Order: sequence, then structure tokens, then C-alpha cells
Amino acid sequence: MKIRFYNCRILAMDGSAEIGEGEVWVDGRCISYVGKGKGSAQAFDREVDVQGNLIMPGFKNAHTHSSMTFLRSYADDLPLQQWLEDKVFPLEAKLTGEDMYQLAKVAVLEYLTSGITCNFDMYLDPCQVARASADLGFRTVLVGAMNDHSQSPDDLERWYRELNGYHPLISFRLGFHAEYTTGRERLEAVAGLAEKYKAPVYCHNSETKAEVEQCIGRYGKTPTAFLDELGMFRYGGGGYHCVHLSQEDMEIFRERGLYVVTNPGSNAKLASGIAPIAQMLGMGIPIALGTDGPASNNCLDMFREMFLTTALAKLREQDAAAVDAQEVLRMAVCQGAHAMGLPECDCLREGKLADLIIVDLHQPNMQPINHIPKNLVYSGSKQNIRMTMVDGRICYEDGRFFVGEDPEEIYAHANEIARRLQK
Amino acid sequence: MKIRFYNCRILAMDGSAEIGEGEVWVDGRCISYVGKGKGSAQAFDREVDVQGNLIMPGFKNAHTHSSMTFLRSYADDLPLQQWLEDKVFPLEAKLTGEDMYQLAKVAVLEYLTSGITCNFDMYLDPCQVARASADLGFRTVLVGAMNDHSQSPDDLERWYRELNGYHPLISFRLGFHAEYTTGRERLEAVAGLAEKYKAPVYCHNSETKAEVEQCIGRYGKTPTAFLDELGMFRYGGGGYHCVHLSQEDMEIFRERGLYVVTNPGSNAKLASGIAPIAQMLGMGIPIALGTDGPASNNCLDMFREMFLTTALAKLREQDAAAVDAQEVLRMAVCQGAHAMGLPECDCLREGKLADLIIVDLHQPNMQPINHIPKNLVYSGSKQNIRMTMVDGRICYEDGRFFVGEDPEEIYAHANEIARRLQK
Repeated sequence: MKIRFYNCRILAMDGSAEIGEGEVWVDGRCISYVGKGKGSAQAFDREVDVQGNLIMPGFKNAHTHSSMTFLRSYADDLPLQQWLEDKVFPLEAKLTGEDMYQLAKVAVLEYLTSGITCNFDMYLDPCQVARASADLGFRTVLVGAMNDHSQSPDDLERWYRELNGYHPLISFRLGFHAEYTTGRERLEAVAGLAEKYKAPVYCHNSETKAEVEQCIGRYGKTPTAFLDELGMFRYGGGGYHCVHLSQEDMEIFRERGLYVVTNPGSNAKLASGIAPIAQMLGMGIPIALGTDGPASNNCLDMFREMFLTTALAKLREQDAAAVDAQEVLRMAVCQGAHAMGLPECDCLREGKLADLIIVDLHQPNMQPINHIPKNLVYSGSKQNIRMTMVDGRICYEDGRFFVGEDPEEIYAHANEIARRLQK
Repeated sequence: MKIRFYNCRILAMDGSAEIGEGEVWVDGRCISYVGKGKGSAQAFDREVDVQGNLIMPGFKNAHTHSSMTFLRSYADDLPLQQWLEDKVFPLEAKLTGEDMYQLAKVAVLEYLTSGITCNFDMYLDPCQVARASADLGFRTVLVGAMNDHSQSPDDLERWYRELNGYHPLISFRLGFHAEYTTGRERLEAVAGLAEKYKAPVYCHNSETKAEVEQCIGRYGKTPTAFLDELGMFRYGGGGYHCVHLSQEDMEIFRERGLYVVTNPGSNAKLASGIAPIAQMLGMGIPIALGTDGPASNNCLDMFREMFLTTALAKLREQDAAAVDAQEVLRMAVCQGAHAMGLPECDCLREGKLADLIIVDLHQPNMQPINHIPKNLVYSGSKQNIRMTMVDGRICYEDGRFFVGEDPEEIYAHANEIARRLQK
């Protein structure tokens, strides 16, 4: 398909925060032109009048557990341990692979409504999540969720070989659940894989204070220092949450070029704390944003995460000037792509993959138009998403899904599964 | 107009959190029936198949400055004093009454998209805001914004007599800007009016720590204790923000039945702090929610405020169980109505005013349907608002406004005004 978007405001995010005016063309999977407009030798299959609305790269949801939709609003307003032990674990134990496949689809639909064009997903069976995304035409980077009870270093290696190449929309990164759920031997095996494939490694890191204290009790070191000493991060990678990093931990993140994937909605709802984003930014640590899963957030909405990232930083620093909206937008778009290993999706430029969105500016929350990037971060909403395109294909437009399946059937499956698991 | 909504899930909020199934009928300005359905002697002008979606009372935005839309995304990421002195005050000084009228309309449109059916508005000229709301068919309770530089006790008394009765959608409450902007003599005059009319009084209260410290420096008392001593709250009323209330202040709120109107989005963005909502709830202080104005929030979205109310309380208390979603929903709907003096808009029941909304549950963020009130607070979004009805009239439906004016003209006016003021 060759598609021409014209009459656009353009936020290309290719190094500048300027808003241009003009056209964006898509040819197959890629962007073929971004500019003021020009003659075309070939006809387009479709020409879209964007009506002065904003076209920009899609949001990158850099930490998710898509299949956990069955737990949305089932386990809230509980202390963390009770939440995990009474609600999350017993139901997860009953999940089948087919359940995970069906449940992940609900999350993919939700990503599309929020202008999210790819996610970085960790769950029990990455193959099922990969299948759901591929079937709906959504881009997903899977990451290992290994711990002492689930997945093995061999699984990680097999998936690393098989899922990278399985489908153009799917890739796989080495990873494990967290230090506190994974014994030293398995961690050393992951570090060995990192060395063997010269690959980055990702995991939950320092989400709660207790987790850090327990690791210090076990190894005399914080999770970051301990894992780094195992050689885990020789080829980069990152940490999800990173609420309770020490100064020394942050130095390791900076030196290794590790990504902090912050999850402010989840960290607030589970009372885990506020990550020191302003300090990390000041040190030059790259930061990406993620919603975490629907059990802990419960909303898979990057507008909420963007607002929370800056609002919570302002509260933490007691400084209304902390963490500028433009920084937040870069995290949610460009740095998310880099954190996931998708540099080909980070901006609007000829040759980049066509993962892009149209944001409706003809809505009262965007008016008057004083400053579009600030509008996006401070007053933007899913309601402003008019179109979401993944890999050159329009998957969501004017409130309708184009994913090859009926959303009502996806919801019906999810409700059946939730009822069965809750029995 | 007689309208029948059928095939509804019903969250009536008339004392129970149960979700019913059935019908809601509207006759003129009022709800004429809520129940399983029954025969009707008269024909309806319109019958709406709600398709199993949720019908509930509208959200009450209990603290706003509607006309400040011209400052949205114009003055962000700045320290509080610089924000006020360099950005807000110089532009406000140039505002005309007609500007305030036009700018308030943008906010009204935004309220409608978020399922808000009335607001409690404080600004320089309440008559202009009243006119905007009345012209668009929106319900607004105005409150005095008097300080030493603007409005007078005589103005308050005149508006109290004239705006109450001006229009069925408009009412007026006694109020002043804040202790820190208003001298003792004027405050005593307001207390005199409260006594004369046996009327409640509202003001900004303890938004920042500095404000409380300055008041203690001036009068040896906190703002709440000082104002109470003047007799300000003999007939009730409330405070906006209330981030830095002392234990003694909270006792006064409880004893006087004063409403705390919390504004978590604004308090976070301006780094003012997190209000002690859990403690207030525990003491039985009635709490309502407000977005504050578009200069400080910048979004006029009750879904965001609901999530922030509980999420920030969870962070403050370091307890994921703090401030249950159901409590938050009650604040946003019923208690908001009571705080503003609109008990006739607090729930769905025969005889109540028809201020109600339809929430789309056929969206991925509401699926599966495990718990609707928790879904509303934790994963709900403006995108879920399918219809907003004010005073028996549908003002917003399926993304379109029915307010008697073209939204594009309202935006065009707002942009012209913003450009002129920023010169």
C-alpha cells in the first residue's frame, strides 16, 4: 500500500522538537517521504486529508505484561504481598497457553487506542504473546521472564534463535524476571548467553525497597551491582521500574548505557515509590516509559504515563520545573524504541518503519494551540488518537479496529477466560 | 423531551455501589424512572439502545477556572512564583470580559468530553463564565474570587442575589480567592455576608506550605483556624486544594462539615504536595474532586483526577490499599454535587435532575468486565464517554457536540485571544 497523508502538522522527532507542516508518505512497511510535499511519479492507494492534525511517531510501551488483562480490576486496593499471593499467583497457575494468546489480544487493542505502536513484553510464554501480536498486526519485542519456577536458560536461548526471525513484527531479547526470584546459577547462565550472543539483558530491577534490602542481605550488594558483577550488562540492556536505585547503581546504568524503563502508574498504584527520574536525566541515563501490566496499573495508556512521569518527578523534587514535557515525549517515543532495540521505529524519516499516529488537535483539550508537545504530555488523552499505523498498516482509525478480528469476539473470549480462572 | 435509555447497565450511586440492569427515562429536566423497565403511558421522543454500556450520574468538577484555557501549555515547567508573576498575571491583566466568555467555552466543551456535567468555577468575572455556560447549556456553580485587587464584598452580595435565579443552570456561592491575597477587613465582610445569608463560604486553602507559614506569621494561626475564628464557616463551605492542613485544621473541617476539594493533578504539576486524603477520609471529612484550571493542570479530565486521587494517596501512605476506588468514585460524583450545593444532581433516581453520562464498556480498557467501579477509576478514560447529558439535554454524543455553536468557531476565538494576549 502507498498512502499519502497531507495537510499535516508534523512532529518528526528526528532530533528536533519543531512542528513542521506538510506531508508524510508511506510505501509498504516504510516511510517514503516527509516534507512540504512534492510531485509523485506513482499513484497512491489512499490519500488522507489529516485536516491540520498532528502526525508523529507512535508511542513505545517499553514494559508490559499483555496477557494479564484477566486480572484488570480483579485485584486492587490490596497490600502488595496479599495482591500477589492471594490474587495474582493462584490465577496465573491456571492459565493455559491459549488463554495467554487470547488475553494478550485485549491489550493489543488497548495499545492501539492509545497510539502505542509497539510494546516490550515479559510473560510466562512469550510465544503465545508473539502469536497474538503477529495475528493482529502489532509490533512486539518479547523478553525472557525466567525465574526459578518458570522458563530456563535453554528456553531463553531457543527463543533468542527462533523468535528473532519468526515474523517481521516480532523480536526477542534476553531477560529474566528479577534478582529476587532467580537464583545465582540461573543468573550466571543468562550472563553467559549475553556473552555468547553479545546481547543486552533486561529484568525487573529495584521496584521495591524490600527487594533491594533482601538482595543486599543475600549478596552484600544492590541488585544492579550484583548483576553487573556477574557480567550481565556487558552488552547493555536495562531495568524495569528502577524506583530504588542507589547513586552507585545509577553510575552503573550510565557507564553501561543501560535503559531505565520507568512505570510511574504501577509504582504509584502499588505504593512502590517514585523513581528519581530528574536525577537520572541529569546524569544522562537513557529513560523509556512503560505501563506495566493491566493487573497493576490498570490502564495501558501512554498519555497517563507521560503525565505521571513528569508530575511525580515534580512532586519528588518539590520543583515545578523538574523533567520538562519535551524530555518526557522523547522518552515515550524515541528512547522507548532504542530501549527495545528498534531504532528503525524511533522517528518520522524516509526509510524508517511506518509506525506512526495521528493526534486530533480539533478537540478542546488541545485548544488553543499554544505548544503542541506540552499539550501532548499535559493535556493529551487517548481520546485524541485518530489513527494508529503499525508497519505501514492502519490498525486503528476513527475509533474502529482493523486487525482482522472482531473486537467483540476478543472481549468475549477474555470474559470467558476470566470467569473460568476466577472460579 | 422524553428520552428512554434501555439495555443499560446502571450505576445509580444512590447509596449503593451495585450495578443494575434496565432502563433510565428522562422527562424534561428530570429523571422520571430508573428500573428494570415498565410500560409507558406516553410515547418517547427518542429511545436509545445503550447496548449494555454503563449509565451513571455525571462527574462533578468541583474546582475550576474555566476561562484560563488561554494559558494552557503556555506556562509550564516553571517554578511556581515565576509561573505566576511572569506568565499568568501579566496576561490576565489584559483579559476583557468578552475574552473570559469566549475562553470559558473551550473548557465547557472539554468538560463534556470527560463526562463532567457541572463545575464549580472561580474567576475574575463570574458573570462572563455564567453566560458561557448558560449559552452552551452547561451547569455551573460560580463562586466569588474576591481578593484585595479584584471584586468586593458588595460584588459578592450583588452576585449572590442576581446570579442565583439568573438561569436554571447557574447558581452562585459566597467565596474569596484565599487568605494570602485578601486582607482581614474584606474577610470580615465576607464572614458578615455568610451570617446575613446563612450561606456557606469557599476559598483556596493551604495549597502550599509557604502560604500556611505566612498566615501563621501574620495571625499566629493557620488559614483554616484564622478564617474559622472570623466566623467564615458557620454555615459550612469548603476549601480548594487543602494540601497542607494540620490536624487541628482537619478537626475544624470535620466539625463544620466543610468540604475538601482536592486537586491532585494541579498539586502535582505545581509541586505543591500530596493532600492527606486517607487521613481526611478516616476522619469522615467530605471530599470532592476538581481539576483546577487549564493553566496549572492542564487537562480538565476527571478520569485523571480520580486515578491521581487514589494513586497519590497510596504513595503518600506507602499502602496499596489506601483510598479505595469506590470512595474515589463517590467523591467525583455524589460528594462533588453536595460540595457545590447541588444535591438534586447527586445520583440517578426519579425526580433528580437528568445530569448523566453513558460510559462505553465495549472498549479494551474496560475488558474483561471484572469490576466496573474499579475499571472507571483505574483504567477509565475520556475515550469511554459516549454521551453527556446536562439538565435533560444531550450536549455530547459519539464525539459530537450539541451545544448550539460550532466547536471550530469556539477554538478559533480562543486562538485569536491567546495570540493577542501573548503579544
